[in-house]
Amino acid sequence: MITLTVKQISAVCQAILEGLGASSSDAKIVGDHLARANLFGHDSHGLQNVNYYAFLIRSGFVNPASNWHVIKESSSTALIDGGWGLGQVVCAGATSLALKKARDSGMGTVGVFNCGHIGRLGEYTSKIAEEKMIGLLFANTDPTVAPWGGMDRLLGTNPMSFAFPAGSEHTVMVDFASAAVAEGKIKAALFKGESIPEGWILDKNGMPTTNPADLYGPPLPPAGQNLVGAQLPAAGHKGYGLAVAVDILAGALTGSGCGNDVRAGNGVFIQAINIESFGSFDDYEKRVVKMIREIKNSAKAPGIAEILIPGEPEFRNAVTRERNGITVSDEIWANVVKLGRELGIDIDAIIER
Amino acid sequence: MITLTVKQISAVCQAILEGLGASSSDAKIVGDHLARANLFGHDSHGLQNVNYYAFLIRSGFVNPASNWHVIKESSSTALIDGGWGLGQVVCAGATSLALKKARDSGMGTVGVFNCGHIGRLGEYTSKIAEEKMIGLLFANTDPTVAPWGGMDRLLGTNPMSFAFPAGSEHTVMVDFASAAVAEGKIKAALFKGESIPEGWILDKNGMPTTNPADLYGPPLPPAGQNLVGAQLPAAGHKGYGLAVAVDILAGALTGSGCGNDVRAGNGVFIQAINIESFGSFDDYEKRVVKMIREIKNSAKAPGIAEILIPGEPEFRNAVTRERNGITVSDEIWANVVKLGRELGIDIDAIIER
Repeated sequence: MITLTVKQISAVCQAILEGLGASSSDAKIVGDHLARANLFGHDSHGLQNVNYYAFLIRSGFVNPASNWHVIKESSSTALIDGGWGLGQVVCAGATSLALKKARDSGMGTVGVFNCGHIGRLGEYTSKIAEEKMIGLLFANTDPTVAPWGGMDRLLGTNPMSFAFPAGSEHTVMVDFASAAVAEGKIKAALFKGESIPEGWILDKNGMPTTNPADLYGPPLPPAGQNLVGAQLPAAGHKGYGLAVAVDILAGALTGSGCGNDVRAGNGVFIQAINIESFGSFDDYEKRVVKMIREIKNSAKAPGIAEILIPGEPEFRNAVTRERNGITVSDEIWANVVKLGRELGIDIDAIIER
Repeated sequence: MITLTVKQISAVCQAILEGLGASSSDAKIVGDHLARANLFGHDSHGLQNVNYYAFLIRSGFVNPASNWHVIKESSSTALIDGGWGLGQVVCAGATSLALKKARDSGMGTVGVFNCGHIGRLGEYTSKIAEEKMIGLLFANTDPTVAPWGGMDRLLGTNPMSFAFPAGSEHTVMVDFASAAVAEGKIKAALFKGESIPEGWILDKNGMPTTNPADLYGPPLPPAGQNLVGAQLPAAGHKGYGLAVAVDILAGALTGSGCGNDVRAGNGVFIQAINIESFGSFDDYEKRVVKMIREIKNSAKAPGIAEILIPGEPEFRNAVTRERNGITVSDEIWANVVKLGRELGIDIDAIIER
């Protein structure tokens, strides 16, 4: 196990992405994104993804030298062709454009197609909230989830995120998949030899199961990633409805494609709402702060020490990890070092800088 | 038990609302809305609500003679002061305004405050979808739900709806509460003497319970409506996050208020998306139809006869109820007839017309 700082993780990822053909500035955008995903506790979206991105680039899914283009635009909307560039670079561009349109016209909504994996959604919506606007993001993903009542993998885990500026309080940040859980949690249980709750997956025969191995065919992860079962939507028909809605907004509307047509990367629907188009920012802020304090000070259910506001777990992780560093497993680190070696990059030298 | 047509339910509600002071055209908007809620199978949002609306009007919460006003506007946004008018009238106005802005500028987003109970959300988003646009609606409600980890009622059931035009297929329509279930389902179990699944409510001590009576203090419904327990969010932290997001969008942004400050009625955030701002409508439609057919034709899980698309249960109800009529329980009908009598309206004469 190795412990790294945000700066170190970012620098390592940046060097690798440059080695894979990204410009220095684009590599820095992705490196910072991955390092901040670790910082906020979302290790599944952090450093370990640099190996996944290398795979996507080497197999030709993603072109790190590509540039995104606006292909359709109005005062409050835009459609971006991401050119299969690095998802974080494309989505950072979409975020800036949504913000600009919201400043100019009151609302900014941007759709994105041909876009690599964008990483942690909360990063983009939080960026909008930092600019004192409300951020919404819906992203569709390759299909691993069965429709409610079905057993074929036809929908992505199709996550969504909302972020709200909250004055003296932390940004209120919601970021979750419409599936019961992210696939990473099923894999984590598999690696630990633990069972999973009913309601997370179906086996290859469409039967409920608590054995995480039933999601996969041979060879089991980490050697393979061959899904034979299906993930289930969160809260039955509700998560199913959300997954379909996200697929249409992020996939059918943008031209990314939906359902079975999604291969890699994300279709994106992102929105920035200028609070002052609707009323006074100060009044908005007072209402949000009042609600946060009422929730924080309300009675806890028996056995609960504290009630957390959406986004609060992430901010707490950031404080702890800023102080103590980010621990990376030997396996993930070995993969990163190996990738560096393949690209002629001395990873040890980078983290010793 | 009595069986009525959509027209009869609408006419009865219209007469009662006129008797309570609404204009003929406003009363018809509400009457049609309630009747269509029954038609689509949402009896909790149908005829029975006319008694609830009478209560709101008589207690001064809602003024059926009030007019709504746009108090702030841009090319793509508007804020409406509903003047505590009938929710369906105000929200129909907000829907038309969102549609107009989406036609003119690509996107239309309207916030509403001081608004009575708007009824079935899917009615408004479906109206947008009928105009070949995508409809989104978030509404916040008076607090009956505990934050995740808490036991105080601080959040509404805060529902949301999405509707998508789908060419030769039925409109894809998602409409659900961020709470585990609508309170009506808990009451229905209480009336039938049935237990409810764990995860729906907490009792007054914040403990999980399967007894629906534990939500209420004496006198139990239908005699009273005195909540002592709390409803729980759907899917734990996910439904909690959605409930908070809806509260901020529909309550803090619009000025309706959120959390503890919501008394009656709904704060509303409604959006119409002009599909052609992003790309070709035909291409969009092809993608949606393809996804629908893939889902409909996919393998069913063992024991499942058919996979339904979001909104399909409602359309099926409408076909059956258009043919067979809408059955109304003796209790609900007695309340309606009693209300009619109080207002000097001969309900029997109306349904015999």
